[in-house]
Amino acid sequence: MSQKRVIKIGLCGLGTVGQGVWKHLSAHRARLEARLGVKLELHRVSVRDLKKQRAVKVPAAKLTTDSLAIANDPEIDIVCELIGGTGLAREVTLAALARGKIVVSANKALLCKHGAEIFTAARKSGGHFFFEASVAGGIPIIKALREGLVANRFRLIYGILNGTCNYILTRMALEGAPYAAILKEAKALGYAEADESLDVEGWDTAHKASILAFLAHGVWIKTEQMIVEGIDRVTQADISTAATLGYGIKLLAVITRDFDTDEVFVRVHPTLVPKGKVLANVNGVFNGIAVAGDVVGTTTYIGRGAGQDATASAVIGDLVDAVTLLTTGKAVALGDDETGSATRSGRGVRLASLDHVTSRYYIRMTVKDQPGVLAQIANVTARQHVSIASVIQTAAEPANAASLILTTHHSNERAIRSTLARLAQLKSVLEKPLLLRIGDFEE
Amino acid sequence: MSQKRVIKIGLCGLGTVGQGVWKHLSAHRARLEARLGVKLELHRVSVRDLKKQRAVKVPAAKLTTDSLAIANDPEIDIVCELIGGTGLAREVTLAALARGKIVVSANKALLCKHGAEIFTAARKSGGHFFFEASVAGGIPIIKALREGLVANRFRLIYGILNGTCNYILTRMALEGAPYAAILKEAKALGYAEADESLDVEGWDTAHKASILAFLAHGVWIKTEQMIVEGIDRVTQADISTAATLGYGIKLLAVITRDFDTDEVFVRVHPTLVPKGKVLANVNGVFNGIAVAGDVVGTTTYIGRGAGQDATASAVIGDLVDAVTLLTTGKAVALGDDETGSATRSGRGVRLASLDHVTSRYYIRMTVKDQPGVLAQIANVTARQHVSIASVIQTAAEPANAASLILTTHHSNERAIRSTLARLAQLKSVLEKPLLLRIGDFEE
Repeated sequence: MSQKRVIKIGLCGLGTVGQGVWKHLSAHRARLEARLGVKLELHRVSVRDLKKQRAVKVPAAKLTTDSLAIANDPEIDIVCELIGGTGLAREVTLAALARGKIVVSANKALLCKHGAEIFTAARKSGGHFFFEASVAGGIPIIKALREGLVANRFRLIYGILNGTCNYILTRMALEGAPYAAILKEAKALGYAEADESLDVEGWDTAHKASILAFLAHGVWIKTEQMIVEGIDRVTQADISTAATLGYGIKLLAVITRDFDTDEVFVRVHPTLVPKGKVLANVNGVFNGIAVAGDVVGTTTYIGRGAGQDATASAVIGDLVDAVTLLTTGKAVALGDDETGSATRSGRGVRLASLDHVTSRYYIRMTVKDQPGVLAQIANVTARQHVSIASVIQTAAEPANAASLILTTHHSNERAIRSTLARLAQLKSVLEKPLLLRIGDFEE
Repeated sequence: MSQKRVIKIGLCGLGTVGQGVWKHLSAHRARLEARLGVKLELHRVSVRDLKKQRAVKVPAAKLTTDSLAIANDPEIDIVCELIGGTGLAREVTLAALARGKIVVSANKALLCKHGAEIFTAARKSGGHFFFEASVAGGIPIIKALREGLVANRFRLIYGILNGTCNYILTRMALEGAPYAAILKEAKALGYAEADESLDVEGWDTAHKASILAFLAHGVWIKTEQMIVEGIDRVTQADISTAATLGYGIKLLAVITRDFDTDEVFVRVHPTLVPKGKVLANVNGVFNGIAVAGDVVGTTTYIGRGAGQDATASAVIGDLVDAVTLLTTGKAVALGDDETGSATRSGRGVRLASLDHVTSRYYIRMTVKDQPGVLAQIANVTARQHVSIASVIQTAAEPANAASLILTTHHSNERAIRSTLARLAQLKSVLEKPLLLRIGDFEE
């Protein structure tokens, strides 16, 4: 019998995801080895604390605290970077790529911040960078965009990419409990971090949107070039008003491209999604992504967006692709073009101006409950050419105040921005207006 | 500048799908060639009638009526079999595979009937068979099962795989119109074939389920080994009763595997799907597939399941994978194991006995409206150990008849089958009872 090739894997980081990869790769090793025709060896594992008790039992001899030593170990073929953050994770990634290794990563923040550098390094050295686990956990959305839907260009991609926010919004909608109470519980249950800002302010969603935009359009859009708004100001009143209007509220990433002008734009914001849409029914910690392709039409992908097992599923999928690459000498994934690993060239693509980023809007204001206020507000919107579609007024705190909710016909981000600035200046408007987008996209 | 390799593609069949492939491949050729680093040439195209007017203009010099000549042409690298049926299509496929070519196919009936033969032929000759377009149109579900979700074993796969049935059921639910009227309109609109039986009796769904079961479990389950029931007996009354109970009715394929006993089973039947489930909200001609993986949990895939463009998207995705295979000398897709192209070995897998195929059930009967009937019926179900969960009785045609709808607790297909046979023998039961399954699956 012929000796099977041994593929040696280094695991950098043995936190939640690292332990999931160890556990499931151990459980499924025999089947995967039979299919791949190789032996898979988890060769070394780096941790911060050698003595920490963990749910998975990794032999002490395999453990090290030196992640860079794994990246530089000439025996190791594939490095799984599961450290997180953009410091040591970047060093490990670049070191491994410089040695022509394959890096498998779940690190969306790293990719969003240093993607261009990482793909340049990979191209230069002949290394490869796989990142299915970085977006939407176990949903194979990266593979779908790069391979399955290769015939398509993508005018519109939108989705729920953060399970924490979706969990909070779902519970608010189902139970009528306020944001702060649900957030507190989510923290206690481990569904939200102690510092929740990365999730609820939309940054985590923005990182993932940046990766999807790169895959679809070949350009890295920085978070500061996006509109990024979180869910922290969404109230029960917004959720029930939206429900009355026929919508659910979801935190969406929206990636648009106009193929006539080659303008692209990425935004993250709480969005009123029509109740009949599938994404309005994606609840709890689940993620969902709708992709409008110019050939296939809209396809939608739903699954758990985070967590040990879902993320491990994606990492192991990438590991298997990496082994195939090693044993055939060529990338499994398509499109090692000038962007390193992306499928789209990004040539000629530019950021859309805010005049070209359009939507219908939902504006909630607390106003003085006195005659003439609505006329003042309507004058402001008219001057910005923002056309009002509906007005709902209800009583509000404090006494003598009213809650005024406007929905608009289609307008654009520049017009709505100056509308909001002017509304905020009105003496009769008692606090900063809340802006939500209405997501009845043309697919 | 180096001469780029030319990949020659033969197109067998220029019907709806063939024309879609021609159209979209022509439109996207430059981008795909840039990414693949080759020239793509649609070298020859076979048609039944050379003189027929078509929406796409194929140069006359490329046209032939001889599909087998394309399969045997040594210049052609990839053959797209878009003829349909299991006669000439099989000959063309086997001839092309025998010459070591790659065959890209959208032909679910062929694959279901002759899959084992096709993969054996491919393995023997070094040819390859790609079939993303055969299931769920443009949704890259084959790639997801084979590659993205490779870490997983699949206890449960279920989905809406036939757009025609889903269109009919959706319109029945939304408009309250009867089955026959909607079917007639669907035919007029081209959403249903002149002979609708393949769709509405569930056979098309069964073909696709067979392919998914092969991918997930490595065995070919024949349609005669499945339970296959269609939607033709579903009435408005069933839809509204189901709605009252909190369910929508969908034609589902359900593929189950018990990993303790290695029993697998495939069934196709109209199913009551809880309204909160995503699949209950997949409407119109759309398909949706839920896949329960043992690592990732449940992921769901939704998109147009048929039609020129969606199918072309999948065919072109496969063509691109085929070109990558040709230029790297190795399969892009994983798992060229003993089943030829499947990912799962099928070793030890056997068909589940009907006692082990369980569900909750919905039974509709037209009964004589007289005392003692319910007691008779309850005696029958009790003797088969089928436990009744709810009883709904309404007036029915003819006069002195009642419509009796039972739902049951969990039972199994053998018990329910004998229950139905015995119920049908009761004098008070006026026509063959209708059986629907309640699809509240444990995911």
